[in-house]
Amino acid sequence: MLERIQKANDIKDLKPEELSELAQEIRKFLVEKISKTGGHLASNLGVVELTMAMHLVFDLPKDKIIWDVGHQSYTHKILTGRKDGFDDLRKYGGMSGFPKRKESACDAFDTGHSSTSISAGLGYVCARDLQREDYSVISVIGDGSLTGGMAYEALNNASTLKKNFIIVLNDNHMSISENVGGMSDYLAKLRTADFYTDLKKGVTNVLHNVPVVGDPVIERIRKIKSSLKQLIVPGMFFEDMGITYLGPIQGHNIPTMVRAFKEARKIEGPVLLHVITKKGKGYGPAEEKPEKFHGIGPFRVETGEPENPKKKDTYTDVFCKVMCDEAARNDKLVAITAAMEDGTGLAGFRKKYPDRFFDVGIAEEHAVTFAAGLAAGGIKPVFAVYSSFLQRAYDQMIHDVALQNLPVMFAVDRAGLVGNDGETHQGIFDLSYLSTIPNMVVLSPKHKWELADMIRFGIAYDGPVAIRYPRGSACDACPEFRSPVVYGKSEMLYEEREIAVIFVGHMFGEALEVRKQLKEAGYHCSLVNARFVKPLDTEMLDHLTEQHKLIVTIEENVRSGGFGEHVTEYLMRTGSDARVQILALPDEYIEHGNVEVLRKETGLDVETMTAKIRKLYETL
Amino acid sequence: MLERIQKANDIKDLKPEELSELAQEIRKFLVEKISKTGGHLASNLGVVELTMAMHLVFDLPKDKIIWDVGHQSYTHKILTGRKDGFDDLRKYGGMSGFPKRKESACDAFDTGHSSTSISAGLGYVCARDLQREDYSVISVIGDGSLTGGMAYEALNNASTLKKNFIIVLNDNHMSISENVGGMSDYLAKLRTADFYTDLKKGVTNVLHNVPVVGDPVIERIRKIKSSLKQLIVPGMFFEDMGITYLGPIQGHNIPTMVRAFKEARKIEGPVLLHVITKKGKGYGPAEEKPEKFHGIGPFRVETGEPENPKKKDTYTDVFCKVMCDEAARNDKLVAITAAMEDGTGLAGFRKKYPDRFFDVGIAEEHAVTFAAGLAAGGIKPVFAVYSSFLQRAYDQMIHDVALQNLPVMFAVDRAGLVGNDGETHQGIFDLSYLSTIPNMVVLSPKHKWELADMIRFGIAYDGPVAIRYPRGSACDACPEFRSPVVYGKSEMLYEEREIAVIFVGHMFGEALEVRKQLKEAGYHCSLVNARFVKPLDTEMLDHLTEQHKLIVTIEENVRSGGFGEHVTEYLMRTGSDARVQILALPDEYIEHGNVEVLRKETGLDVETMTAKIRKLYETL
Repeated sequence: MLERIQKANDIKDLKPEELSELAQEIRKFLVEKISKTGGHLASNLGVVELTMAMHLVFDLPKDKIIWDVGHQSYTHKILTGRKDGFDDLRKYGGMSGFPKRKESACDAFDTGHSSTSISAGLGYVCARDLQREDYSVISVIGDGSLTGGMAYEALNNASTLKKNFIIVLNDNHMSISENVGGMSDYLAKLRTADFYTDLKKGVTNVLHNVPVVGDPVIERIRKIKSSLKQLIVPGMFFEDMGITYLGPIQGHNIPTMVRAFKEARKIEGPVLLHVITKKGKGYGPAEEKPEKFHGIGPFRVETGEPENPKKKDTYTDVFCKVMCDEAARNDKLVAITAAMEDGTGLAGFRKKYPDRFFDVGIAEEHAVTFAAGLAAGGIKPVFAVYSSFLQRAYDQMIHDVALQNLPVMFAVDRAGLVGNDGETHQGIFDLSYLSTIPNMVVLSPKHKWELADMIRFGIAYDGPVAIRYPRGSACDACPEFRSPVVYGKSEMLYEEREIAVIFVGHMFGEALEVRKQLKEAGYHCSLVNARFVKPLDTEMLDHLTEQHKLIVTIEENVRSGGFGEHVTEYLMRTGSDARVQILALPDEYIEHGNVEVLRKETGLDVETMTAKIRKLYETL
Repeated sequence: MLERIQKANDIKDLKPEELSELAQEIRKFLVEKISKTGGHLASNLGVVELTMAMHLVFDLPKDKIIWDVGHQSYTHKILTGRKDGFDDLRKYGGMSGFPKRKESACDAFDTGHSSTSISAGLGYVCARDLQREDYSVISVIGDGSLTGGMAYEALNNASTLKKNFIIVLNDNHMSISENVGGMSDYLAKLRTADFYTDLKKGVTNVLHNVPVVGDPVIERIRKIKSSLKQLIVPGMFFEDMGITYLGPIQGHNIPTMVRAFKEARKIEGPVLLHVITKKGKGYGPAEEKPEKFHGIGPFRVETGEPENPKKKDTYTDVFCKVMCDEAARNDKLVAITAAMEDGTGLAGFRKKYPDRFFDVGIAEEHAVTFAAGLAAGGIKPVFAVYSSFLQRAYDQMIHDVALQNLPVMFAVDRAGLVGNDGETHQGIFDLSYLSTIPNMVVLSPKHKWELADMIRFGIAYDGPVAIRYPRGSACDACPEFRSPVVYGKSEMLYEEREIAVIFVGHMFGEALEVRKQLKEAGYHCSLVNARFVKPLDTEMLDHLTEQHKLIVTIEENVRSGGFGEHVTEYLMRTGSDARVQILALPDEYIEHGNVEVLRKETGLDVETMTAKIRKLYETL
């Protein structure tokens, strides 16, 4: 059956009775392919029928489907002729795990971060109407993504604009909040004519009564209102905003969904279709542990067990362990996550200290200002967050944390190149945007022990501080290099002359190797661990320029506003004769692929860096 | 009466019958003082009684009041002993127009941007409970600020945490949306026991009925539901989220509010007190035109007319005019604002092109992704926004606009030092954060004609582009300098040798004067208008280094990641012998005050810059 789907709309040639077989084939295909390449599984298994129903009703690429986050777009990729791409899924040069306009005309909008689809969809809707074009726009958003404030901003705006627009709420009960969850339970009970007629009668009889605040009956009212709202309110959340609600709809029943989409297309103004799906649907291990199969590496299909079980601690593991240790000693220490309990390693912290753990939902902006409030109230909050998601809270760091010099610690995970998730997830701007913020202290560790030391430093530091560390296994080389972490001080690892290499954080391994190759080629080379990107260790720089003609900086961050520029600026300001060579990421988006490959492509691999250094040094 | 208020809680010594006289005195005081210094007036006149009521019920500084935005905190400042500060309101070294922790222990949290107060308040609430302390936390948020997504994120989180927390919705019907407005009309009708009892009876009778999607009665249901929700839903918005709703309350009646606050303090869990106030209350001209008296310069009390009527066009005026002209020619051009129709100059555009104007509410994140969607759909959107507010949408610019290289134009107003609004409003990070974004083009004009040319360039440019310009009168000197704006090219104004001064945008006037003083002192000096901060005009830099020993860069932006660092990095990379001197803002928050004074304090005034250049040049 799958062979008959070669391009968009081919699915429409299938007979109705063949559809469930196709769904089965797609599931089998996804499990098999992802078991080999790794990727997002559970979310994709959940939307097989939903995607098929959309493709049956709508006409792509004329109609626009916008996937929130986008990791659930695999079936969409299959149905638009990209089946063969799954052999190289998320590999360098291969197919992306997210929608990409440059990959297919059927991908209407690139995504990767959460809660953007309604905004983007509403943009398309207005563009369509302004140009008097005729197509449908469908934004598919998960219940988790709805906790993000910008989704609410977009719903608010959609209700004002009153334009035809279909929003699909893909409710898989996963990162689900009570409100959204309650809706699916209660709304079924609301949708009968009799109910509404009765209700209306009751309401109109009492319209002339006006309440008095402070009235003795207030408490009684509140209780009744509270029980009442369990029955009536949830679905109204959207209707209240002027958005027609349809649902809930069984998200694995294709004919039902086809009917619902046809209905939705006829409705004037924005409409929300509430679809109930099951994450991991159809693959036992993923149904049982959907969080484990959210994003996963290669695994054995029969058991669901990983092909390459983790051997070494990740930086994330180290972070969690130290946080738990410190929390035992310091009862003011609390941890915050924006819906990334597992990813940031805080699950262990939550178990031990449930009262000191806050999952605020996919709400980075709120998370940061909430942390500022905690700090103003005398608590030491640590916000653990991925580098690329912290971009969302740049203003809150400037305006709510650093302006008041509040002691909030940012544990910036997934910094630098993250690999297979690609462009939207690379954590390559943080050194730059964090450096612009007055009062902010920015550190990065070279290995697991230094991360532990830096976390302790950050917890003790009385001001805003950010520690950035990468995805994946923590470096456990050179435990002998472990001098105490001192504010603003870098660490000299090897002191020689001629060339000084200063690296930031996890470029330690590469920097060591670069030095080795330089030595082998007959150069003298010092090696310095920057430790602090802000403030700069100017004393060390002054010292280095006495004995070195060339200062090389290595960082996995964009050049603009990064560590290397700051070093250059300082040496220029002080009139040093030393030459600076910045080895950093280029001013471009870096696609998905293995980190080693990406380093090679961007010139941050050992060979390229060594060659560049030698070439420049020879000209001095 | 006012004389008896010397410190926090002094108001509690007044007799109840003296309170309305105090309110009158405060209003008179505010109108008189602000008529001399300028400042925020209408919002402050609106909350006189609300603030008094809070001060009567709560105990400051033990209890924490957090003002959203904070421009409405003047009465709070008076009641906490800062009456005398109004003579130097918003002047350098004088009292801030916003809450400042360093100014008073009664200011619980610094604010300036919108929609942060619930997040910060919730942080205090959790800090209190974790430390088993006992105080009240009151966040005061306007109906306009509620359109910001992070307020919703915070409400969502508050409802999960179920802690005692008072949120005051100060509803002044100003930047009001229908939903919030509808609430005040309908909720009065909800608060009687009989109503709820009847309703509940009706509901329980039909609970077993389940709807079918696509049912022929669906349309009828929708209509009934729609009329029903007018009666019942609005107030439920908050209750739906698990937040007790009290109100609406007359916001100029002190005894009513005192009762309401005492009631609110007794309620378990988060409570929202809905207070209706009138912006500008008690001063005729401000009641009539509250938007005019939102933020205002000195004015005549009798008439409300400004003391110093505007004589020259502002950059904002120029922006509006060019937008209207271009829109006549280009029917794909649309304009977006985040609740700043007047401030960004788009009011004129709205009048001429209502269908091509979008006010999305205080929702910068949504605004940017919405613009990206419009651009993906074939429209040319221009988002006009203040520099410091665009910080809110840093991720959306990276993730939704520039990643797909979409032709969204950012008209970045209030860039550089803004003056009296102070730390939270200075637009001093934009060159840095915009420069980090791949594909982004960043320009800044030297005078009004160049702004017009750049806007036309930006509209025609097929990619993301940001034009930054300052608050206030547009420079109309040197109309003869008006060579065409060409992608990536700077503009040579005077070509000599020895010293080359490159300035960014509105530092033109200062740079001209610096050159003049250098010439008078016997130096040769070239003058270059950077025009493009990104991409750098490397050809010009190569040319300049041939004839100049010293390259000076002047920008009103922080040094970190700014124009000067990029120039330095380029010259270092190319091995130039020229020395670079960066004249930029220091790595610190810059407080309120006259822009001229602030430039002097930060070393960006003509005398300091000239002296620095001479001093350095003499050492070369």
